[in-house]
Amino acid sequence: MKKSAIAALVLAAAALPAVSQQMKPENQVKYRRAAYQLMNLNFGNLDAMAENKKPFNKEEAARNAEFVALLATVPKGFFGEGTDKDTRAKPEIWKNRADFDAKMDKMTNEAAKLPAVVKAGDMAAFRKQVHDLGEACKACHDEYRAKQQ
Amino acid sequence: MKKSAIAALVLAAAALPAVSQQMKPENQVKYRRAAYQLMNLNFGNLDAMAENKKPFNKEEAARNAEFVALLATVPKGFFGEGTDKDTRAKPEIWKNRADFDAKMDKMTNEAAKLPAVVKAGDMAAFRKQVHDLGEACKACHDEYRAKQQ
Repeated sequence: MKKSAIAALVLAAAALPAVSQQMKPENQVKYRRAAYQLMNLNFGNLDAMAENKKPFNKEEAARNAEFVALLATVPKGFFGEGTDKDTRAKPEIWKNRADFDAKMDKMTNEAAKLPAVVKAGDMAAFRKQVHDLGEACKACHDEYRAKQQ
Repeated sequence: MKKSAIAALVLAAAALPAVSQQMKPENQVKYRRAAYQLMNLNFGNLDAMAENKKPFNKEEAARNAEFVALLATVPKGFFGEGTDKDTRAKPEIWKNRADFDAKMDKMTNEAAKLPAVVKAGDMAAFRKQVHDLGEACKACHDEYRAKQQ
């Protein structure tokens, strides 16, 4: 998959109108949760390969990277008004929205780099990118995700 | 996004070992449900465009199509042993597994065609492909999904 194709999709996502804001809060929570669950599944596999817990498989990694890059663009549109119930998302998100959005964008951008890095096949670069994305995820979780629901 | 890239990912998905079979049943249910939820979200938008319920937006449709094609490859690996609890998936799936798998593959293949059809921009072909994918979804739902959990 070409870097430009993913980059285009990420840009397209950024340019999309926030239609999801008109969606029922419980559905917004459902969709962002689904995206995080599948990101976690795919990122977990990449992380295991990056940390030598399982052998690197390029086809599998390419698929995981593609998923992560695309899914990473989902959650931002689903933190609308009233979506602070039945969720680990902390109220601070809506108090510090600009900071939250910046952390989200950082994560999305790091995720968007993954497919090209996997394709290039340089293991050091792969490990660094998985690490950088992991840090971007963590930055948001540390601040804006409750430890338990 | 090139047709070949998506086709390659679908083929790669088909060739993947069924690692998910070793996953806890409740996690398998969680992941397949997440994939279906996000497919439904994206397909719903394509369907609305195909049925003139909202204006056709090529960038948005390309993004939806990409999601649907990729997510369509997820569920098949998450119908392992013991995943028949807390789900609308009917027991018939495990009795008629070959038929279920064939219906699943049909759906995955129809979904894989969507990105290229959107890119080509022929509205008649777009409507037909959305319809064909919808029928492929329905064939499985009619037979293997309970009306209510």
